[in-house]
Amino acid sequence: MIVNCAVYAGGQKVADIPLDQAGEWAARDGHFVWIGLYEPDEEEMKLVQAELDLHDLAVEDAHRAHQRPKLEEYDDALFVVLRAAHWNEEKRTIDRGETHVFVGPRYVVSVRHGDTGSYALVRERCELSPEHLALGPGFVLYAIMDFVVDSYFGVVDHFEDRVGTLEEAIFADRSQRDIARRIYDLKRRLIMVKRAVSPLVEVLNRLVRYDSHQLVPEAVRPYFRDVYDHVVRINESVDSLRDLLSGALDANLAMTSIRQNEVMKQLAGWAAVVAVPTLLAGIWGMNFQHMPELAEPWGYPVALALMAGVMAFLHSRFKRAGWL
Amino acid sequence: MIVNCAVYAGGQKVADIPLDQAGEWAARDGHFVWIGLYEPDEEEMKLVQAELDLHDLAVEDAHRAHQRPKLEEYDDALFVVLRAAHWNEEKRTIDRGETHVFVGPRYVVSVRHGDTGSYALVRERCELSPEHLALGPGFVLYAIMDFVVDSYFGVVDHFEDRVGTLEEAIFADRSQRDIARRIYDLKRRLIMVKRAVSPLVEVLNRLVRYDSHQLVPEAVRPYFRDVYDHVVRINESVDSLRDLLSGALDANLAMTSIRQNEVMKQLAGWAAVVAVPTLLAGIWGMNFQHMPELAEPWGYPVALALMAGVMAFLHSRFKRAGWL
Amino acid sequence: MIVNCAVYAGGQKVADIPLDQAGEWAARDGHFVWIGLYEPDEEEMKLVQAELDLHDLAVEDAHRAHQRPKLEEYDDALFVVLRAAHWNEEKRTIDRGETHVFVGPRYVVSVRHGDTGSYALVRERCELSPEHLALGPGFVLYAIMDFVVDSYFGVVDHFEDRVGTLEEAIFADRSQRDIARRIYDLKRRLIMVKRAVSPLVEVLNRLVRYDSHQLVPEAVRPYFRDVYDHVVRINESVDSLRDLLSGALDANLAMTSIRQNEVMKQLAGWAAVVAVPTLLAGIWGMNFQHMPELAEPWGYPVALALMAGVMAFLHSRFKRAGWL
Amino acid sequence: MIVNCAVYAGGQKVADIPLDQAGEWAARDGHFVWIGLYEPDEEEMKLVQAELDLHDLAVEDAHRAHQRPKLEEYDDALFVVLRAAHWNEEKRTIDRGETHVFVGPRYVVSVRHGDTGSYALVRERCELSPEHLALGPGFVLYAIMDFVVDSYFGVVDHFEDRVGTLEEAIFADRSQRDIARRIYDLKRRLIMVKRAVSPLVEVLNRLVRYDSHQLVPEAVRPYFRDVYDHVVRINESVDSLRDLLSGALDANLAMTSIRQNEVMKQLAGWAAVVAVPTLLAGIWGMNFQHMPELAEPWGYPVALALMAGVMAFLHSRFKRAGWL
Amino acid sequence: MIVNCAVYAGGQKVADIPLDQAGEWAARDGHFVWIGLYEPDEEEMKLVQAELDLHDLAVEDAHRAHQRPKLEEYDDALFVVLRAAHWNEEKRTIDRGETHVFVGPRYVVSVRHGDTGSYALVRERCELSPEHLALGPGFVLYAIMDFVVDSYFGVVDHFEDRVGTLEEAIFADRSQRDIARRIYDLKRRLIMVKRAVSPLVEVLNRLVRYDSHQLVPEAVRPYFRDVYDHVVRINESVDSLRDLLSGALDANLAMTSIRQNEVMKQLAGWAAVVAVPTLLAGIWGMNFQHMPELAEPWGYPVALALMAGVMAFLHSRFKRAGWL
Repeated sequence: MIVNCAVYAGGQKVADIPLDQAGEWAARDGHFVWIGLYEPDEEEMKLVQAELDLHDLAVEDAHRAHQRPKLEEYDDALFVVLRAAHWNEEKRTIDRGETHVFVGPRYVVSVRHGDTGSYALVRERCELSPEHLALGPGFVLYAIMDFVVDSYFGVVDHFEDRVGTLEEAIFADRSQRDIARRIYDLKRRLIMVKRAVSPLVEVLNRLVRYDSHQLVPEAVRPYFRDVYDHVVRINESVDSLRDLLSGALDANLAMTSIRQNEVMKQLAGWAAVVAVPTLLAGIWGMNFQHMPELAEPWGYPVALALMAGVMAFLHSRFKRAGWL
Repeated sequence: MIVNCAVYAGGQKVADIPLDQAGEWAARDGHFVWIGLYEPDEEEMKLVQAELDLHDLAVEDAHRAHQRPKLEEYDDALFVVLRAAHWNEEKRTIDRGETHVFVGPRYVVSVRHGDTGSYALVRERCELSPEHLALGPGFVLYAIMDFVVDSYFGVVDHFEDRVGTLEEAIFADRSQRDIARRIYDLKRRLIMVKRAVSPLVEVLNRLVRYDSHQLVPEAVRPYFRDVYDHVVRINESVDSLRDLLSGALDANLAMTSIRQNEVMKQLAGWAAVVAVPTLLAGIWGMNFQHMPELAEPWGYPVALALMAGVMAFLHSRFKRAGWL
Repeated sequence: MIVNCAVYAGGQKVADIPLDQAGEWAARDGHFVWIGLYEPDEEEMKLVQAELDLHDLAVEDAHRAHQRPKLEEYDDALFVVLRAAHWNEEKRTIDRGETHVFVGPRYVVSVRHGDTGSYALVRERCELSPEHLALGPGFVLYAIMDFVVDSYFGVVDHFEDRVGTLEEAIFADRSQRDIARRIYDLKRRLIMVKRAVSPLVEVLNRLVRYDSHQLVPEAVRPYFRDVYDHVVRINESVDSLRDLLSGALDANLAMTSIRQNEVMKQLAGWAAVVAVPTLLAGIWGMNFQHMPELAEPWGYPVALALMAGVMAFLHSRFKRAGWL
Repeated sequence: MIVNCAVYAGGQKVADIPLDQAGEWAARDGHFVWIGLYEPDEEEMKLVQAELDLHDLAVEDAHRAHQRPKLEEYDDALFVVLRAAHWNEEKRTIDRGETHVFVGPRYVVSVRHGDTGSYALVRERCELSPEHLALGPGFVLYAIMDFVVDSYFGVVDHFEDRVGTLEEAIFADRSQRDIARRIYDLKRRLIMVKRAVSPLVEVLNRLVRYDSHQLVPEAVRPYFRDVYDHVVRINESVDSLRDLLSGALDANLAMTSIRQNEVMKQLAGWAAVVAVPTLLAGIWGMNFQHMPELAEPWGYPVALALMAGVMAFLHSRFKRAGWL
Repeated sequence: MIVNCAVYAGGQKVADIPLDQAGEWAARDGHFVWIGLYEPDEEEMKLVQAELDLHDLAVEDAHRAHQRPKLEEYDDALFVVLRAAHWNEEKRTIDRGETHVFVGPRYVVSVRHGDTGSYALVRERCELSPEHLALGPGFVLYAIMDFVVDSYFGVVDHFEDRVGTLEEAIFADRSQRDIARRIYDLKRRLIMVKRAVSPLVEVLNRLVRYDSHQLVPEAVRPYFRDVYDHVVRINESVDSLRDLLSGALDANLAMTSIRQNEVMKQLAGWAAVVAVPTLLAGIWGMNFQHMPELAEPWGYPVALALMAGVMAFLHSRFKRAGWL
């Protein structure tokens, strides 16, 4: 689907154009074309490729999703793959998507796949600051990357919340069964985010260091450095979260063991409290003919009292020892 | 076994030739020979070596299987060792093989060992795009590597399926004994795949960066970069899988502990439910002469009712506490 | 809040000035302005930016807290982000803060956020050694970094104390439940400190190696090397502490298991001590008509003695075996 | 002990010579001396040093065993320390040794310590291929290193066998006590082999890259690259084995836990099967005067049948639930 | 305390001098001063600094102990910090100390802190080999470092002994409680040694590579390489020990679990052996009027025999199954 296709010059939008005029406009000096596609079909991709003369391999990659984030240089073009993730507060899920960006001297093409939000907002913001947009396609690339990277902060915040509630659950007395599953689940998601974010460190590092590349002019580089910092911070947060999670796992294991100890102590304690009077009852239930206490009228009450006393004594001892 | 031996020029197959004419054809300008061998015997290897003047050490390596993936440069030739793996859906096993490729300015020799599929398909595909095949032996090397690397995706997918079923089994109530074995088994296979794939990252990195080598012309390098990306992705998938597996292991251990806790609680709970009425029965089984309740007609039913009541009370309490 | 704003020349304070004269004074040869801000509002930041011509992105960063420690170079200025932590002995908490420092050829601006102590002390110390202060803004940067880094030593010492008390608790017989929580808690704080300190290694390394930068003159570099050493030492201490903590965790797990073993042995031991006489009582409680010992006057005392003997024997055996 | 001392020229052995003529022969153009020593005494070492002018520190090292594998360059000589290990199938132990090799432009001295096999075989093989031996002392160094490295394959194979039998033992129902010991033992041996092999990677890497050194002529370098590959492979095998071993450890721990669960379930199950009829017996053993069933002739058989029924019912239920 | 202060020339001691003549002698061509201090007070340090013109920061460091090992270069001087550790066989403790060495073109100053042995021995050895001492202050630095590093071998040997006794204790049946503590304790000491030794690798590496520095002449470098080898070996030993220790920890955990299994099996086994005859006694203790076996004279002995038989049967079965 073609979301948008417009020409910009001097930081201002010149016109919305049909896709098949893109090549023509991109050839004009001082102009660049910004095309936004959403899960384009083969025909649309072919048209864009023909208009802007994109490299075969890059187009092939853009067609298939599930690429890893990367930056590839072709003669006079860059091809960037990004993975997007966005915490959807309403549905309480993580929306995932993938974006492929082709950047040439006079064009930017963004190809969006999946459920994450559209780049209409990015376009809007860019159009509001013409002095930046005048820097050309390199700045648009920055704007898209910044947008994608920023939405990871929400994901990381969500993970931090979940680790927080996990901690409480671990040290509280709730169902442990659930906790093991939640730890595992969170770990799996962190691995997913890590795989999406960590290659970006290298990608942005290369974009920051491009001294000679005309597509990333000097003035745009501090902006990429800013995104680089964000990516590094997200990366560190994810690493810290994994560290915390492994700590939570250890704590959970320790708590399970401790609870087992407590159950066993209670088992042992109550067993003792019941077993001793049972023995006594057994003794007075023996059939010896000469058991003088059996004939006494005080025998029975004393026996019961003795049993109760033994139970009370054992109970209080175990209580004091922390077994009951 | 000689699978195939053909001469190509300008991207077109010129002729199928017998092995002992390979040297002669390889000497002609603009031609190159592509030989496919399957577990060749010593004689065949010697013939190929003599015809194409291959290096002793490389031939020795090709003869013995169980090399690690590597790229070796000789004066005007490359020697590449690849390990292949292929998920066989029918037999539900992983077929394993090894391929050694000799690449010279005017020849390619592939030596296949083991159970993985033949390269007939590769040859076919190459012959269908003469403009690529015209790039020479370097492109053929790419085509073979691409084929080998792509078949790892199937293996990784299979592993991901298995981790998925493992997860379900862990958090379900199935036999834990089996799970420990499956985790171990999967771990062993991942180590095997890792050993086969990870050296390829370095091999492909070197192929991509060959600026000066005539065997890998400029136009072929983007293709190797593509394979490089695939290898990195497979590598990352394997690392993620290992990470997930270690998470699964931890989860399994936690679940085993939790189940043990549950068994122990049940043991303790039922023991208490039975032990208390047993004590009561013991008490009324004592032989004291003055136990007035024994003589009453309501004694027995009340005793039974009391026992039942105690049992019901204990049962409901343990039930509420989640022990039963 | 503007904490301080003064002009220095030749190592001596020349005058306290209002903020809006900062640019003017900073333009005079041989003078530099040192401005100290505490959580400035937008207006104050804007004024400083205008006076000293600071870069947009840096100011934006300084406005938002929660940056990661970093060093950024702009044309003729440095922007340094530091995270501060300070062990508050009174409240027994770790105060945390963040400081952003702008360093130009003729100015230093420190922007402090959070609860850690003011830099009045740093200013005082600097003013006491004019020969150092004469080195310019670079030395002030050193003085601030030294102050921030040194306060981490107190935090690390506090952690070492806590690990020490943890060790005692683990090998003593106290509540294990508490220990798991304390280990987890300490781990979380160490991760926090690690994230604040470890990026400083790279920052200081770059400051030490600045050969050509006018802001860090040759004579100041040994001082940065000194701070570098401190940061490395703190880093190593944190790593050692994490190592120790993981050892403590393992030890705790081992102790929990061992205690469980001990509880189980006691359970088993006492169960045996009570079960055997209960069996004996059961035997003599059987209703066979021909049980000669039942009729003997010595039957009952002998039975009791036998029971007591069996119990004493079992008790002493288990005692010797270390089960009781 | 002097094992051998011979002069070679043009790939052919010229003569066996006494040790004190070594210097004289080594001075002749186109000749080189190959001396093989086995745990030489101080006098012998001194004589060799004097004849061939070896460096003090190297000789000191060669005298003491327990060096770590390394390569040291002196002005015109190389000093190589190797650790040898050999799986002795007969005694079923790993023989360990150490070899120090001095290589100069016209001499090779090998000093062997410990139990591993002599280098007679290496000498024999070298003498059989004069075209290689003609390459000089560098080739002899290769031959010795190849021999030492190859014998590690046997050690690794042996370890792989042991891991295999371990796996079976873990998932079978054998004594776990033994398994923990075997895992630990294997781990210790792997650490030992790792320490012997891993420094060789660096040593061989340096030998392969020696562009300018006359002792390793161009033609010998592919051979060192071959040994390099072997060392890397052994290294990877050892790493894989350690990985597998840690997997085995985890699996063992999991199996121990699972077995504990099974024991506990059986304990609980059988306890229940016995406890319920015991309660019933206790009830009918009470001394209430009005227990009508006691007077009935069918009372006893029915009671026994009821008990048996309860036991059978519980047994079958636990059986079905997998507890018995 | 001033331990020693002497002038050397041409490898020979010229004279013992008072500290305040050090500067004067150090100015003479071909002479150098070697000063040995032990925990000097401020005055002594100031005097040395004044005489030899040492850098402020270095002197400050030397005054405070608890530096991390490092090498710092000042214009024409080196400042080296070493941590010493020595296994004291008599007191069975590890003596710890710290040494700071200032090396200039014509002086060496060693400042010793803590309990490790004096450097009198080093001085003696140096004086015995004038040809080495003639190499100047660089050789003295080597001699001190060699002495410090060598004493770590004793520490490592001691650790290896302790790991050995640990292993035995783990697989024997001794108190596990103690073992967990010993493992933790050893781990803590290894971390301490690691922190002292590992920075030395970098320090020595830099000393070995100093091509241009006059303080480390060409002839001294092989000696530093020798110390470098020792440091690497100690480092590797410490790493191996940590690896072994983690193996010991795992083994200990496994053994604790296994022992728990054994205790539980015994508990279950004996419980069964006692519970079944208890049930039988309960049955014959029931008060049914029609229990024909009760009236028989053979009833009681047969009942006892039956009980004994059941117990013997169960006992032998559990014995065979390895539960008892």
